[in-house]
Amino acid sequence: MQSNLRKKLIQLFTEADGEFISGQKISEELGCSRTAVWKHIEELRKSGYELEAVRKLGYKMKKKPDKITENEIRLGLKTEKMGQTIYFQDVVSSTQKIAHELANNGAPEGTIVVADKQTEGRGRMSRAWHSPEGNGIWMSLILRPEIPVQKTPQLTLLTAVAIVQAIEEQTGIAAEIKWPNDILINGKKTVGILTELQAEADQVHSVIVGTGINVNQLADDFPNELKETATSLRLASGEKIDRAALIQTILLTFEKRYRDYITHGFRPIKLLWESYALTLYRELTARTLSGTFRGKALGIDDEGVLLLETSDGIKKIYSADIEISPS
Amino acid sequence: MQSNLRKKLIQLFTEADGEFISGQKISEELGCSRTAVWKHIEELRKSGYELEAVRKLGYKMKKKPDKITENEIRLGLKTEKMGQTIYFQDVVSSTQKIAHELANNGAPEGTIVVADKQTEGRGRMSRAWHSPEGNGIWMSLILRPEIPVQKTPQLTLLTAVAIVQAIEEQTGIAAEIKWPNDILINGKKTVGILTELQAEADQVHSVIVGTGINVNQLADDFPNELKETATSLRLASGEKIDRAALIQTILLTFEKRYRDYITHGFRPIKLLWESYALTLYRELTARTLSGTFRGKALGIDDEGVLLLETSDGIKKIYSADIEISPS
Repeated sequence: MQSNLRKKLIQLFTEADGEFISGQKISEELGCSRTAVWKHIEELRKSGYELEAVRKLGYKMKKKPDKITENEIRLGLKTEKMGQTIYFQDVVSSTQKIAHELANNGAPEGTIVVADKQTEGRGRMSRAWHSPEGNGIWMSLILRPEIPVQKTPQLTLLTAVAIVQAIEEQTGIAAEIKWPNDILINGKKTVGILTELQAEADQVHSVIVGTGINVNQLADDFPNELKETATSLRLASGEKIDRAALIQTILLTFEKRYRDYITHGFRPIKLLWESYALTLYRELTARTLSGTFRGKALGIDDEGVLLLETSDGIKKIYSADIEISPS
Repeated sequence: MQSNLRKKLIQLFTEADGEFISGQKISEELGCSRTAVWKHIEELRKSGYELEAVRKLGYKMKKKPDKITENEIRLGLKTEKMGQTIYFQDVVSSTQKIAHELANNGAPEGTIVVADKQTEGRGRMSRAWHSPEGNGIWMSLILRPEIPVQKTPQLTLLTAVAIVQAIEEQTGIAAEIKWPNDILINGKKTVGILTELQAEADQVHSVIVGTGINVNQLADDFPNELKETATSLRLASGEKIDRAALIQTILLTFEKRYRDYITHGFRPIKLLWESYALTLYRELTARTLSGTFRGKALGIDDEGVLLLETSDGIKKIYSADIEISPS
């Protein structure tokens, strides 16, 4: 279908606001035969539009497809840098993988890779991340901060703060951060963050911040093994969320926090992070590569490392799976 | 030339131990005509052999070419892991670049990439590193340590310690380390180390340790802009150094220090490093991305960060160009 005919047809249905439009009227407005109208309707159906046809009444639009498009992300985006270069594809293997390639080829800071579906979505430690189409935000952001490699884990914490703030602004939901990279609502995982980098020992070349957000899944959309532990913003708020608008809010919030960070260092981020932290002053079990440690979370240090008060003294936790003991 | 004929010819010259062999004898031993012998001699000359021809006496070998070969590195290598997989090429763009590709394709820990010449040798901060053929060791080593990303700069310091020890063992020269990645002899740069990594915020995927060592350059071999600031092991010791043997010593020493590090952490490495450090307790100027700082070097902290006592208190230096003030 020619794209101007398609646009006009969608516009007609949008203006009709859920009422029927006769085939005759569509045929006149589009300047094509009734048979051609029928073909165009079929094509719209294939792109995800739910259109009802009733003899003598004509057609009405019951539902628009739930898709993010590059245009929806771009229009009204109020950032200076973040998201100003967009690579959007319906289906990708992994947005992280594409972002790494773009970064190697010189993509500017703020470039984002967004997909409607990932076939090989990944979380920390190469774990799989369920990334079905239509319901989530699967996004990778390229950064080029002038920071030493020791400080890059701070960017995971900064991203968590920005996303919690964006979720609150957009939906009113108060989410919580579980160190280092999960955002939970009512104790269930809603967002995962994966920060990867390419660096020299004392100079970062690029940081790729990947974000997976469960937005519009209903309970049945989660695979069985995740039903108990995962939730979505829709399940938590009871409302369907506009994903493109949420991406815009996240990019704007991220840009503000990132500017704070580059200008003032980690201190302002650390205070915000601690205010959203689920894990603070709780008894934890931390499973690390070098052993399992139990103790009370004292907070994070100036580099973003978790400080755990164990019976053997304060232990620095760089990387771990955290389990919060029942209080 | 068939490789068995070539081998036989080299063997004849080696057995003759610098004496002349008649063309007739060579012709008989190789089972080929005098004209063919002359052609084989020409080919050997092209590969870097210095062969003298004197009428009636025949040919004698004055000098073998100074080449490293994969076999010379492999034979007698006493390590368990380091250098057990070798990628050797006469000329490469950059051993780091090749090592990154190998690491991405799953090359095991200890894999080395060695070249006789680099056309695009790199140092820290993407600076060029002069890597002419025949005189240096241009080598990249792939590591897969289970350490958090914050600790990777320690591997630069560990490598510096291992190379200083290997140089001392092989040549008797006492070299010194200038934080973070240079090894100097009599105040002149002899070795540079470039540590690069691919990582998640809390898990390292691979570390590529690149080493450039000026081994057998004479003063005239350095380009003008380096003549004042660079030296070679040969200039410092007055003797030509066996590069393949030095690579073996470096790999063995590195393997020992790396094992210490993985088992006991950075503490034993830190003590060794400080004992070889040129910069300790000296007045320094440190040029960093965020400004220039002056002060006294107090040492390195447990993560390998330089501690500088400035008039404003102790400043942590993550990345800098260091200039030592005249004492």
